[in-house]
Amino acid sequence: MQGLMMTQALTIGSLMAHAQRLHPHQQIVSVTADHGVFRYAYRDCFARSARLANALARLGMDRGDRVATLAWNDHRHMELYYAVSCSGGICHTVNPRLFPEQIRWILDHAEARLLFIDAMFLPLVEKLAPALQHIEHIVVMSGAQAMPATALPNVLCYETLLEEADAHFDWPTLDADDAAALCYTSGTTGNPKGVLYSHRALLLHAYACTMPDVMNLARHDVVLPVVPMFHVNAWGVPYAAILVGAKLVLPGPKMGDGETLAGLMDDEGVTLALGVPTVWQGLLEYLRKSSRKLRTLRRTIVGGSACPLSMMQAFEREQNVWVHHAWGMTELSPLGTFNAPPPGYDALPEDEQARLRASQGRPVFGIELKIVDDDNTQLPWDGKAFGALKVRGPWVCSGYYRETDNTASHDADGWFDTGDVASIDADGYMTITDRTKDVIKSGGEWISSIALENIALSHPGVRAAAVIGVQHKKWDERPLLLIVPGEPAPTRDAMLAHFEGRVAKWWIPDDVVFVDELPLTATGKISKLTLRQRYADHALPGDG
Amino acid sequence: MQGLMMTQALTIGSLMAHAQRLHPHQQIVSVTADHGVFRYAYRDCFARSARLANALARLGMDRGDRVATLAWNDHRHMELYYAVSCSGGICHTVNPRLFPEQIRWILDHAEARLLFIDAMFLPLVEKLAPALQHIEHIVVMSGAQAMPATALPNVLCYETLLEEADAHFDWPTLDADDAAALCYTSGTTGNPKGVLYSHRALLLHAYACTMPDVMNLARHDVVLPVVPMFHVNAWGVPYAAILVGAKLVLPGPKMGDGETLAGLMDDEGVTLALGVPTVWQGLLEYLRKSSRKLRTLRRTIVGGSACPLSMMQAFEREQNVWVHHAWGMTELSPLGTFNAPPPGYDALPEDEQARLRASQGRPVFGIELKIVDDDNTQLPWDGKAFGALKVRGPWVCSGYYRETDNTASHDADGWFDTGDVASIDADGYMTITDRTKDVIKSGGEWISSIALENIALSHPGVRAAAVIGVQHKKWDERPLLLIVPGEPAPTRDAMLAHFEGRVAKWWIPDDVVFVDELPLTATGKISKLTLRQRYADHALPGDG
Repeated sequence: MQGLMMTQALTIGSLMAHAQRLHPHQQIVSVTADHGVFRYAYRDCFARSARLANALARLGMDRGDRVATLAWNDHRHMELYYAVSCSGGICHTVNPRLFPEQIRWILDHAEARLLFIDAMFLPLVEKLAPALQHIEHIVVMSGAQAMPATALPNVLCYETLLEEADAHFDWPTLDADDAAALCYTSGTTGNPKGVLYSHRALLLHAYACTMPDVMNLARHDVVLPVVPMFHVNAWGVPYAAILVGAKLVLPGPKMGDGETLAGLMDDEGVTLALGVPTVWQGLLEYLRKSSRKLRTLRRTIVGGSACPLSMMQAFEREQNVWVHHAWGMTELSPLGTFNAPPPGYDALPEDEQARLRASQGRPVFGIELKIVDDDNTQLPWDGKAFGALKVRGPWVCSGYYRETDNTASHDADGWFDTGDVASIDADGYMTITDRTKDVIKSGGEWISSIALENIALSHPGVRAAAVIGVQHKKWDERPLLLIVPGEPAPTRDAMLAHFEGRVAKWWIPDDVVFVDELPLTATGKISKLTLRQRYADHALPGDG
Repeated sequence: MQGLMMTQALTIGSLMAHAQRLHPHQQIVSVTADHGVFRYAYRDCFARSARLANALARLGMDRGDRVATLAWNDHRHMELYYAVSCSGGICHTVNPRLFPEQIRWILDHAEARLLFIDAMFLPLVEKLAPALQHIEHIVVMSGAQAMPATALPNVLCYETLLEEADAHFDWPTLDADDAAALCYTSGTTGNPKGVLYSHRALLLHAYACTMPDVMNLARHDVVLPVVPMFHVNAWGVPYAAILVGAKLVLPGPKMGDGETLAGLMDDEGVTLALGVPTVWQGLLEYLRKSSRKLRTLRRTIVGGSACPLSMMQAFEREQNVWVHHAWGMTELSPLGTFNAPPPGYDALPEDEQARLRASQGRPVFGIELKIVDDDNTQLPWDGKAFGALKVRGPWVCSGYYRETDNTASHDADGWFDTGDVASIDADGYMTITDRTKDVIKSGGEWISSIALENIALSHPGVRAAAVIGVQHKKWDERPLLLIVPGEPAPTRDAMLAHFEGRVAKWWIPDDVVFVDELPLTATGKISKLTLRQRYADHALPGDG
């Protein structure tokens, strides 16, 4: 028997309508290339989104069309988020930091016909333009006076488009399952893959983000997403902040600039900021150098990669700012787990506090986690067992855009394989221990490359370290340690002895290779893929 | 184009699974007739729910069957909530405070075949039993030793059923639109009407309740719902508290007992309690009499009817407890609006603070409000205009159970007419000014009976007051004031003079009637229906 309740769809449009009615005067503050600090109210943002929706229609955007953006976090990007998704299009954010060839590939694959760009990306787009098969119009997100000169024939000015557009737009009624946004993952292997978010997924994700044990977002908050809007919708902040009516501060291209960030935080009264560890490292260094204390910031949310415990402790001690770990993926809209301290945290011993903080946190309601072994058998939540991390839930992708076969990413029961290896403790705190492709499979058991690297790095004579698995006749794979030695450099034997008592005997690497430097990926991480290729034939001592 | 996201349904079962995994050790504390204070963990609750689901199946519960309850807030009622809804049944809570004939009518109308009751309601059910056409089994929620004697042939013992049931139950996969619960409104006119909640409605409602600007529910909270579980699912607390993993304290039949409530609050560390104003009045009186200060309670949520400002202020001043107004209805699952102080509240002048606190609060995201005039034209949100309050949203009923015609309750655009008259200010704070049927329609304009009653009550010579509309040749209706005079009694002219300067001239009542007492409804409110009937032919001065 069906319930007798209304069936209003959860859509980005319903979010906009609510905010317009309940929080019309709340502010959005934005740094752009052509403004120092630009400031307006939600209602101005949505009024301009309505004009933009008319402009999009005039430029030929149909229902379901992808509208691509190459842009930083600013008010015009916000207008695009709402104008495109609420008028039935798909807001397709593209990461300008990718290799130009990847950007070209993505724009082509998504078949976007409209491309909105920040002025600073025009040189990039000019180079790509001849190869872009589907783009009909390029709109530079700028005022008319600041428009850069270009030889491209199909370039339009954002502000001119808005001026010419009608102020009134009849927002359509959309279905919750309609696609609203598209973001490509930049995998280290193979082509990028597109994650196609539905309105329902983004709205449920927004509800979940606001909860007290998650982002704890309220109307009195001032939120600064330092995570880019081209990176999984800035972790959903452009929706969740609008849902609760929080003030939003958008740093434009100034994301990596500690001084600008600190200035924005103090000037605008920022209470919560979100970003990857490198951003916080930069900010912390600036704050130390300038002996500056942040006035209002009390919480940051850190994801993307693990935040060193020392940085968390430094923010707490030096700035009275609590750093929350969170974990997510493009495929998860992105939030999977969030680290809030459990009740009674303050009374815990220091090492238990440290263990909890280093974890990626607990699954938010809506997300199911499991860890499995090679046979897809569930492993216990005991904080020890680790296995492939799989997830399920209404904001997890069921497949990739224009991919018909999802068997590589999803198992037969529909769980998404994150590619991460993790353990989960009895209280649900999940800790990423490795990537599936980096874990070393020795005699049917798994060895965490990250755990071994952390031990190596704790030796004073090691500047950088990586552990990879290399082929072994008897054990299939065995760990090989590569280090960039410091001064004085440790001996091979001293290095291996350093592992004794710190891990099980059979985890200790079979060999040590001393190198001058480690190869990096485009995003600055150690490229284990390159290392595996380079050391594929490395002869381990005692292996035949 | 559809998004490519998973389609996991939001169901009560997903809530149970999450809580079982993430919060197995969190406590539920319960007062029952056969226990002083009973205490167990979420996982015990859900383990017993699984046994109960097996027992329900053995008793013949099919998908979509209504399972009726006549019970207080206790752990067994929680088990029923989850066992029934998660196994595909409909948890049909019945208000034991209704007239027996209404209870009979409701059980008959819902065609429930199973009835679960607290032992104290057995005498009531024994009287009703011969007239109950569909009930096959009556289960007394008690242990075997405390089972009351009865001549009824079809009475079973709850604990015996559970003992005999299998511990493992395969919970089915349900659809989000499936019905999960049923609750009848007790309208003052006509038969009760059944509101049939879907899983989706209850889950979205639970998400919305947890938000920081709404109930602000977190894992570290200890929640005491003094609102009965037979009254709109205890305002959704049995779902929202479980969603966040809060400790739950259930007062059983001891809801009206200030001493028991205060004891539970202090012993269990209650941080948030919810209930109607009379409960808080009783608690406040007990606390004053015993000069007791509550240790841990910091917030209460008050709904059902308006909470006097003086009581809010007393709780704040005497107990350091903040009282939040909320407004809802059975038809709204129930939450419509919630009163959280806006940013900057502390700096507002005292009368503005008082005005805000007296309001019912702002719509939570998911609920749309509008106020309309007689022609269904929207009125402005200016804090002055008042009109019929209509609502829309995914947890608002679209019709009533077994009613095919919803034109009396829903307009052509699908908005639900609440029967309330309200104003809404520019910031979205909604204030109920009257019931639609009580407002006085004078010359095409509306006069609030409640506003006039409040003015009358501010006269020291008035003990009780009611204002009703009576027929008038020229103006259609005009207000008639009825008062129960105190000592000394005011004169008619002094009474009318009291309104001057306090309302527009044309709002001032046309006449005053002095009475010894005012007729009350079954729930203790002044029966304006009786008054309108009694004074239908009252001749107003100057009206022909």
